[in-house]
Amino acid sequence: MKEYKAFLQLFSDHLEKYISGLAQKSPKELYDPEGYILSLGGKRIRPLLAVIASDLFDRAPGEALDTALAVELFHNFSLVHDDILDAAPLRRNKATVHVKWNTNIAILSGDVILVKAFQALESYEPAAFKKLGTLFNKTAIEVCEGQQLDMSFETMDFVPVQAYLHMITLKTAVLLGCSLKMGAITAGASEENQEHLYEFGKHLGISFQLLDDLLDAFAEDAEKFGKQPGGDIIANKKTFLLLKAMELANADQLEEIKTLMGLSDTAKKVKGMLSIYSQLNLKELCQQEADKHTQIAIDSLNKTKASSAKKENLKQFALELLNRQI
Amino acid sequence: MKEYKAFLQLFSDHLEKYISGLAQKSPKELYDPEGYILSLGGKRIRPLLAVIASDLFDRAPGEALDTALAVELFHNFSLVHDDILDAAPLRRNKATVHVKWNTNIAILSGDVILVKAFQALESYEPAAFKKLGTLFNKTAIEVCEGQQLDMSFETMDFVPVQAYLHMITLKTAVLLGCSLKMGAITAGASEENQEHLYEFGKHLGISFQLLDDLLDAFAEDAEKFGKQPGGDIIANKKTFLLLKAMELANADQLEEIKTLMGLSDTAKKVKGMLSIYSQLNLKELCQQEADKHTQIAIDSLNKTKASSAKKENLKQFALELLNRQI
Repeated sequence: MKEYKAFLQLFSDHLEKYISGLAQKSPKELYDPEGYILSLGGKRIRPLLAVIASDLFDRAPGEALDTALAVELFHNFSLVHDDILDAAPLRRNKATVHVKWNTNIAILSGDVILVKAFQALESYEPAAFKKLGTLFNKTAIEVCEGQQLDMSFETMDFVPVQAYLHMITLKTAVLLGCSLKMGAITAGASEENQEHLYEFGKHLGISFQLLDDLLDAFAEDAEKFGKQPGGDIIANKKTFLLLKAMELANADQLEEIKTLMGLSDTAKKVKGMLSIYSQLNLKELCQQEADKHTQIAIDSLNKTKASSAKKENLKQFALELLNRQI
Repeated sequence: MKEYKAFLQLFSDHLEKYISGLAQKSPKELYDPEGYILSLGGKRIRPLLAVIASDLFDRAPGEALDTALAVELFHNFSLVHDDILDAAPLRRNKATVHVKWNTNIAILSGDVILVKAFQALESYEPAAFKKLGTLFNKTAIEVCEGQQLDMSFETMDFVPVQAYLHMITLKTAVLLGCSLKMGAITAGASEENQEHLYEFGKHLGISFQLLDDLLDAFAEDAEKFGKQPGGDIIANKKTFLLLKAMELANADQLEEIKTLMGLSDTAKKVKGMLSIYSQLNLKELCQQEADKHTQIAIDSLNKTKASSAKKENLKQFALELLNRQI
């Protein structure tokens, strides 16, 4: 959509100005990593959602730019710290902060990015600042809880699918809801409209993550999306697919899943697990679960009192985001 | 002082209630470390200063309890992350969070404590919330900058004394100023009075750190204070004493300092360095620098428009804090 391109450009300029400001700051060991991670790129979906939400209530998009900056900073804080937790060497094909510098610098520069996310909200007057800060605090805590659950799941033998859905809601989805709601707050939208947009973003996020699980296992050209095909299967990652398989499997299938999880022959492992997924009809079940959340998202968007044309644009944008993955 | 004991009790009760609330929270891996670090004790100087500042302007001490909680939470966040950075095994003679659990959990629970520090301020109405949040953001960033400077100094051959004073101001002193100013804000004090208290706390903090350096090298019963005598000298820590020694030393003395820093015989190293410090009159110079900041602190307190009796109490409390160390 043409206006979304303009919004994205507006945000890119705003972010660029912020990044330029970092070059003057001291100590460099603290601020260089911040400039680095922010410059790695990305789709900037969260800040874009904040600007789109503000525009939905006919505010000048410029007014939402500092909430957009806040959510993008928060997202980047979480990337820097999560990459330490996951011992990830690469982020967007570049060295992660803890690899390029060291873990201590990554911890501390992550901390400072988190505080600067809160600081970005200071341009709003007190009433909006408090509403934004309160939502932001709640969301930040939820994201940390989601990340902790994800780590805890790694060492658990069995995780219920419901617990997985709760985890991805916290780790991934609430920040999308928060981005939209913050944009709506800066636009002075009613609490009801704020809530509809929050639910829209949250369920969009859940659907997004489920389709990501699906893509990892079933996409024929997964490499095009920068993923190792079957990477989740190889890593025994507890995705919707694996957990649902464990729930639905009969005794023999469960035994085979456990054997496959112990295999070091990755090709055999991926092939075997995909066969189980196929027996249990998991591609369809995961797609259905994703579709359910997409529908809840769209229903929430429809309930929002705003221009039909603008809502339609946002709906199309959301569907494109989801379809890009599969 | 009797009323300070009552304030401390009030805060302890408030903190205890907060800690009890953590037991109900999930995931436990995230919240158990928070309860653990908050329960390790400590002098609770920062929250006490917030309550004292509020009382200085005749507000009920209860009104400052959530700012007191915020600064205590922030302090504990910084302890959890700093202990990772310093690879410290012990904190108050108990295992540090990253040792008792692991580094990943320490990073993530530190993050969540930081966010909860901000969240503690939500009980204030929007105008105060914004003033408190803005000061808190600024201070949090400064503390991170101070911590980064401290780490960077470790690998530098030479650090000017002025840079050291700047580092301890950021790492240690501004949070004391912030604690007092936040208490003053909750009490609706004038901006002038807020600033006087901030300067009082900041210079008190600088003096405190300088006397800590002095104590580490010269205290006859350093062990009583839980420190290894000469621990800073053994670790080649760039304190006021070492850096001032490097500035004042002649060529021969500088050569000797470098030789001593390379010694593995710790008894010989401490003795040799103390001899250099004595030749250069450093005990007196460090005491003078501390006294200078104590005086600036007291002058700032005197300028504050508040009850003389209450100011006198706070002055005596500050002097006791400083004297306890030497």
